[in-house]
Amino acid sequence: MERYDIAIIGTGPAGVSAALTAKNRNKRILLLGSRQMSEKVEKAHEIRNYPGLPFVKGEELAAAFRDQLDRMEIEITEKRIGAVYAMGDYFALQAGEEMPEAKAVILATGVASAKTLPGEEALLGRGVSYCATCDAPLYRGRTAAVIGYSPREESEAAFLSEVCSRVMYFPMYPEGPVLPDKVEVIREKPAEILKTEDGPTVVTAAGKYPADGVFVLREAVAPAQLVPGLETDGAHVKVNRRMETNLPGVFACGDITGTPYQYVKAAGEGNVAAISAAAYLDRRENRKE
Amino acid sequence: MERYDIAIIGTGPAGVSAALTAKNRNKRILLLGSRQMSEKVEKAHEIRNYPGLPFVKGEELAAAFRDQLDRMEIEITEKRIGAVYAMGDYFALQAGEEMPEAKAVILATGVASAKTLPGEEALLGRGVSYCATCDAPLYRGRTAAVIGYSPREESEAAFLSEVCSRVMYFPMYPEGPVLPDKVEVIREKPAEILKTEDGPTVVTAAGKYPADGVFVLREAVAPAQLVPGLETDGAHVKVNRRMETNLPGVFACGDITGTPYQYVKAAGEGNVAAISAAAYLDRRENRKE
Repeated sequence: MERYDIAIIGTGPAGVSAALTAKNRNKRILLLGSRQMSEKVEKAHEIRNYPGLPFVKGEELAAAFRDQLDRMEIEITEKRIGAVYAMGDYFALQAGEEMPEAKAVILATGVASAKTLPGEEALLGRGVSYCATCDAPLYRGRTAAVIGYSPREESEAAFLSEVCSRVMYFPMYPEGPVLPDKVEVIREKPAEILKTEDGPTVVTAAGKYPADGVFVLREAVAPAQLVPGLETDGAHVKVNRRMETNLPGVFACGDITGTPYQYVKAAGEGNVAAISAAAYLDRRENRKE
Repeated sequence: MERYDIAIIGTGPAGVSAALTAKNRNKRILLLGSRQMSEKVEKAHEIRNYPGLPFVKGEELAAAFRDQLDRMEIEITEKRIGAVYAMGDYFALQAGEEMPEAKAVILATGVASAKTLPGEEALLGRGVSYCATCDAPLYRGRTAAVIGYSPREESEAAFLSEVCSRVMYFPMYPEGPVLPDKVEVIREKPAEILKTEDGPTVVTAAGKYPADGVFVLREAVAPAQLVPGLETDGAHVKVNRRMETNLPGVFACGDITGTPYQYVKAAGEGNVAAISAAAYLDRRENRKE
């Protein structure tokens, strides 16, 4: 079995960026993910703040990533990784019945949205959004419903209230919320998101709340038991500014490391993770010699 | 005087990215830098690892940034900032004789690629200056020496020649320079700046050039010089993962925060800095109400 220098798990902006930089550094890489790239990228309407690509559509950005990987001769291996095991001086990746090996691992799997609301996934990109900063302009002068899973999401709702004519906020936590007066706080638990004639509608036990756009804003769900021993901070992998985790040889980048969930933030972190992984490998080589 | 929400200093990938995201967040921004964008970007031959723009030339990337700022209706104010002063609940930026104000500041000035000259730091503020626009009035009718690290500094030297009785110019680059006749171009490499009885003196292998003021003009100024009280780590500003510095309301991103000096790393950090600055402003607003 060939042992790669670096296994990169994920083909969103973080994983793609890590792959480009690792390849540039002449590392033998295994890039694992979907050739459709990240679902979140693909379904984004229009991205206004990705430097160098003005008003780019999500599908255009995904296509640009794919094209760039092709031109750099980086293959995508379409396998789902069940677990990453530290084996001493290398890692074994559980990919179904196969077990590819790598000397270093970069986690770029994004944020697993484990428990989605019924209807949420089906309406994603069609009235349901995960990013106020990205999609607010689509709902200028219109009505937005925000389902916020943590107080951190309040600044997103406050921002929406500057743009939308009406904002309803469903706090999924007991405290607060502290919001501009204009935001209507509805203390009812959303049970599902329905597609109705009035637009996407938040359904609770007490009522129905139609909107033009529904923003589902959650603190990431724990990145799972992907890597035993990995130190996490609630939903996210703990990293330092070099994108190093607590496990030597394991790096993380993109949404998995925490908010803000933004494309260029993820791409920037992927670059740093790859450079740190390359430096880790180089140090190891030099010690052995 | 209009008070901006966020002043962004620098028009490299970090500053551009911060500006795009801050604008997206409906903040009133003042973007300070050169419309030629960062010199480092402009002069890059080919960038292979900027996700979404395969094999992009530096000048193409700079042009893409400019175009994107134009389309987002973000202006570049071509002023050099000499210092940033914390004034309690806002910041005052010294831009020659003007003093624009902002509630938050994002530092994206890059990192000085050249080492400081021996004697430079010791004489800073005592005969050595980094800002012609700021300090020219001190040398009215007197002699100035200008050490210019790029052709962009020529306009500063030209300006000094209107004010000073004599201007010597030491170009630290091969081309040109294109300067008024009154400016004496000296094609010798400064080795140090000495304090002598005749005033600060530029020393080269071939001779000694005393002046009343020595202007050392490079693209980036040492960050601690720019913002009094800012915590630095050598040439770099100390930041956490949210790009917060030790000073509330001051954020930093890009090369100024440390290695790797990479375009997409800088762009990613600019995005994070803008979101953190917006959250800082929102928290402040909501507390006041």
